[in-house]
Amino acid sequence: METNRRALLQGFTGAALLAPYLALEKAMAAEPAKAPHGTSPDHMAGMAEMEKVLGPGLYGQEKVALLIYPKFTALDLVGPHYFFACMFGAKVHLVTTEKDLSPVASDLGLAISPTVTMADAPKDLDVLFIPGGTEGTLGVMGRADTMDWVKDRASRAKHITSVCTGSMVLAKAGLLKGKRATSHWVTRDVLTDFGAIPVNERVVKDGNILTGAGVSSGLDFAIALVEMLRGKPYAEGLMLQAEYAPEPPFKGGTLATTTPDVAKMMDDMFKPVGAMFKAMAAG
Amino acid sequence: METNRRALLQGFTGAALLAPYLALEKAMAAEPAKAPHGTSPDHMAGMAEMEKVLGPGLYGQEKVALLIYPKFTALDLVGPHYFFACMFGAKVHLVTTEKDLSPVASDLGLAISPTVTMADAPKDLDVLFIPGGTEGTLGVMGRADTMDWVKDRASRAKHITSVCTGSMVLAKAGLLKGKRATSHWVTRDVLTDFGAIPVNERVVKDGNILTGAGVSSGLDFAIALVEMLRGKPYAEGLMLQAEYAPEPPFKGGTLATTTPDVAKMMDDMFKPVGAMFKAMAAG
Repeated sequence: METNRRALLQGFTGAALLAPYLALEKAMAAEPAKAPHGTSPDHMAGMAEMEKVLGPGLYGQEKVALLIYPKFTALDLVGPHYFFACMFGAKVHLVTTEKDLSPVASDLGLAISPTVTMADAPKDLDVLFIPGGTEGTLGVMGRADTMDWVKDRASRAKHITSVCTGSMVLAKAGLLKGKRATSHWVTRDVLTDFGAIPVNERVVKDGNILTGAGVSSGLDFAIALVEMLRGKPYAEGLMLQAEYAPEPPFKGGTLATTTPDVAKMMDDMFKPVGAMFKAMAAG
Repeated sequence: METNRRALLQGFTGAALLAPYLALEKAMAAEPAKAPHGTSPDHMAGMAEMEKVLGPGLYGQEKVALLIYPKFTALDLVGPHYFFACMFGAKVHLVTTEKDLSPVASDLGLAISPTVTMADAPKDLDVLFIPGGTEGTLGVMGRADTMDWVKDRASRAKHITSVCTGSMVLAKAGLLKGKRATSHWVTRDVLTDFGAIPVNERVVKDGNILTGAGVSSGLDFAIALVEMLRGKPYAEGLMLQAEYAPEPPFKGGTLATTTPDVAKMMDDMFKPVGAMFKAMAAG
């Protein structure tokens, strides 16, 4: 049974939490005398400890799809990806809106390789996730092929999720009507134009819809979702693995808490962006 | 002069903060009647406001190199990348340890496209940055070509930096001898084996060396570095743009603060990893 379980876990992405064990096992097999720590019985004890602490949360086979489109914001996606891909047995797909699997450049020029096209992505998802952006997100909201795909996968997905202006994509697809949701602070109130109810919270849950605020909220969002999927001990384990005990060097990060002249400058600078998203509600 | 400045900024990465202005300008040029907000005078007023609030921090031409190697931890790098690439005028290079510019897969299978090889990367850097990982980081520490490159660029870099076990790479290159530094909690005490002084803090500065703790500390680390490079208002502006006002859904993220049985499980699980890094100090 141990062997079956190992094979199952190795066959999927998300084996990061197990990687140390596998590496150790490999090292021991190659040079038993040089095994840096532990022995096979220790190893087995470790697996037993994990089963005890994590309970049924240790096991899962979630299908997770993260959408990638030209000029998406990479950090919106890579934060959640870390936590999702560390769920044993989960399969994380990076779904491109483009024709082939060429790397897709983010708004800041960081290009990430997708793993599957929209057409080939699994039909029935546990998690549908949309990252945000500015120009790129507006572009996707105007594309019939992408919006059709989002609507189709959302119609069966167990969890419909977003970070940042990713919620604008969900809104444009008509998925947030009458729902409580959040977005980047620039576009949060624009949710109203799509019939949603904007909520000024970091992570907002309404039924099977989970939305995060701007960019960095993806970490808080993902931990909340891992808790929903695998239970609290699993989420706590990943928080510790990511050493997620944030200490911003100074106050800020919201219009209400940052220095007033910085708040005004940024608000003025991003007003046109908010207006562009608002204009998408009419079309 | 306005035109010169625009050309300068557009020629580099890091124009994200300016993107809304540029997008607006483009939209207005295409369809003046549909300009969603503001006018050209407003736009110019925005630039003036930025100059007033950000001061000299608005301008810079930093050369930043982020190392990418097989099985690096993507979130270690993508957090800092966001903040660095949002510095107007800065040029951010993704430097691969491999022979060509093929995408490099992270420990969790997220492949990122490098922009330059080690050989072609700028010689004189403002920022040298090394992300962490486990197996992949151990691999890089054992590679003469990579260690030679790190030593060479560090010898002239204005800031030598890392997140997570990236500090193990700096340590292996002999750059942390007698220096205060941090690392992922699993390897923090291993710094001693390389002659460094481990410090249990989120971000540690010693002279021109800035190291961050595990994975998610990259956000705190990067904001601290942006403050050093561009001043506090700029860093506050980016914190607000990233909506960095973290709210972990529950307590944890360190051995001391998480649930005791989760702490024990994770500590037991990662002990072999710590031992593998320790073994690299001897070699």
